[in-house]
Amino acid sequence: MSQFWSPFVKDLVPYVPGEQPKMTRLVKLNTNENPYGPSPQAIAAMQAEVNDDLRLYPDPNGDRLKQAVARYYGVEANQVFVGNGSDEVLAHAFHALFQHGKPLLFPDITYSFYPVYCGLYGIEPKPIPLDENFQINIADYFRANAGENGGIIFPNPNAPTGCLLPLAAVEQLLKQNTDTVVLVDEAYVDFGGESAIALVNQYPNLLVTQTLSKSRSLAGLRVGIAVGHPDLIEALERIKNSFNSYPLDRMAIAGAAAAFDDREYFNDTCARVINSREAVVAGLEQLGFDVLPSAANFVFARHADKDAAQLAQALREQGIIVRHFKTPRIAQFLRITIGTDEQNQILLDALKAL
Amino acid sequence: MSQFWSPFVKDLVPYVPGEQPKMTRLVKLNTNENPYGPSPQAIAAMQAEVNDDLRLYPDPNGDRLKQAVARYYGVEANQVFVGNGSDEVLAHAFHALFQHGKPLLFPDITYSFYPVYCGLYGIEPKPIPLDENFQINIADYFRANAGENGGIIFPNPNAPTGCLLPLAAVEQLLKQNTDTVVLVDEAYVDFGGESAIALVNQYPNLLVTQTLSKSRSLAGLRVGIAVGHPDLIEALERIKNSFNSYPLDRMAIAGAAAAFDDREYFNDTCARVINSREAVVAGLEQLGFDVLPSAANFVFARHADKDAAQLAQALREQGIIVRHFKTPRIAQFLRITIGTDEQNQILLDALKAL
Repeated sequence: MSQFWSPFVKDLVPYVPGEQPKMTRLVKLNTNENPYGPSPQAIAAMQAEVNDDLRLYPDPNGDRLKQAVARYYGVEANQVFVGNGSDEVLAHAFHALFQHGKPLLFPDITYSFYPVYCGLYGIEPKPIPLDENFQINIADYFRANAGENGGIIFPNPNAPTGCLLPLAAVEQLLKQNTDTVVLVDEAYVDFGGESAIALVNQYPNLLVTQTLSKSRSLAGLRVGIAVGHPDLIEALERIKNSFNSYPLDRMAIAGAAAAFDDREYFNDTCARVINSREAVVAGLEQLGFDVLPSAANFVFARHADKDAAQLAQALREQGIIVRHFKTPRIAQFLRITIGTDEQNQILLDALKAL
Repeated sequence: MSQFWSPFVKDLVPYVPGEQPKMTRLVKLNTNENPYGPSPQAIAAMQAEVNDDLRLYPDPNGDRLKQAVARYYGVEANQVFVGNGSDEVLAHAFHALFQHGKPLLFPDITYSFYPVYCGLYGIEPKPIPLDENFQINIADYFRANAGENGGIIFPNPNAPTGCLLPLAAVEQLLKQNTDTVVLVDEAYVDFGGESAIALVNQYPNLLVTQTLSKSRSLAGLRVGIAVGHPDLIEALERIKNSFNSYPLDRMAIAGAAAAFDDREYFNDTCARVINSREAVVAGLEQLGFDVLPSAANFVFARHADKDAAQLAQALREQGIIVRHFKTPRIAQFLRITIGTDEQNQILLDALKAL
């Protein structure tokens, strides 16, 4: 604390990202990275940008990327916002769309950055408990049950549970909540869900965010997107242009656009991760784990007898890193990223021996 | 405007960056980019990052870059903050250090993003007029003259004037203003100024920001830094970690660190720009322009008889883009970036013919 800080800074509780260890030869299954590299077309597009033109500013609007996203989803470019990772996109959305002097509704067990953004922008968080099976019950978010809200946000599939809310349920929620923004954070949707982007033309209060860090294997590049009604996108652009005109560098715009254009590689790698996930689930269940149904590139599992913190520590000693949250309700779960089949087998073998 | 916007969004007046035209074969002298490309070592470092490891998150702290900056300036790594362009660094500084319910002092003619940040974070701007020679008079910022302040910010050299406040004057201001943050925005300091980073160990309220977009020829990469007392840096880190854990991608961390390490290329290209500037100043004066003394990679010049807006338009029709601000006091000036000697000659020849 310092006299020079803006007063709210001392009360901020920053987000704690999963560890990025600097050791090598790890089996790193803790931050939901893709086991496969980016599209070779994305690699080539980025390589083509590493030259003397880096002396020049990038396109402040990232139009090439917006157009690629618009093509991919069959929407217009003015329905697309792009930012420096979906975390930045989410931050702008909290700032631009959720400051209404009413609480923001989100699941009690969810992406732990949401309450952090609330702290940053002075928004009252109103966590809504998942049901006893760790599922979102959409009726809990209806005005009659939850009361007034300044907005609703949830990941779909949810994190860290991996559980999917079917698109029909998302639409039912939208029908019941027409006067504040519903933000569906689809960081993991490509591993088993159907995107709510299909609904943006019908629901002007729907904003969908996605990241290129998971299904498009570009965590190291920092690109996220939002898709929604042009009015919602305009609010994000106003914040962005009042914050940082050029959030995406030249490699990011080119690489991300190429990643959206290379559908074949994307479909192939997503399918491989999904297949591996089913094998991991089967393996974990055989070892006595209860695994929540996952539509993501990770699983959330608890053992009938063994303590999760102790398991995580024992794996760590063998160079296998998974994520454990010391959080009420989920302290006995491990969140395990789906790796290559070889990595997954190392994990299962290690767990078997513990 | 939409019912879904947070109410303050409708009143935001976003920053308008200099145009990034998509035409080719331009003489682009409007956004103060470096005419020379980045250090070959920076290019090589970025190339080495374009590979399958992009599937992995970058180091959220950018330690490699912080260490390179610390080495370069002889400070500790915990005195260094890094962000996605100096605009992001400035935004976090406004949020973290200037929200004190008192006005923020800055020159009336200065970087036009400052009042935009004030709008974004609800800070009252208090512009202090430059003197009749477009110079900062530091006494105008002393409490006895300006009254209470929630902080002071100015670019040094100032933009768009290019005029430098000598380091001794910066120190005199720090001696007179010890209880709020003084932010010296050194985007252009390497083209003729002495960095106030030399003073950070003596003045715990001094924060210095720099960008890699100008003197290090990396506008397309988006990297900025701040250097100051560890307490000030901690405030920025708290905001950053409540906003976006991973602002710098893998190429940005590696390329920016290599650019700081390659002192020889940096010194050489800065010297070339400075030499070219002196030639441009002489050429403009010969054509009847009054040129403010510049310590930057641009000059700010007005003609005795010719209208600035008309000159800018006439140059544009020949594919030469300079910047003109329709702003009181400076509407008769053109801001002209120093290009290659060939580009500068094209500009001077075109002006001669007008």
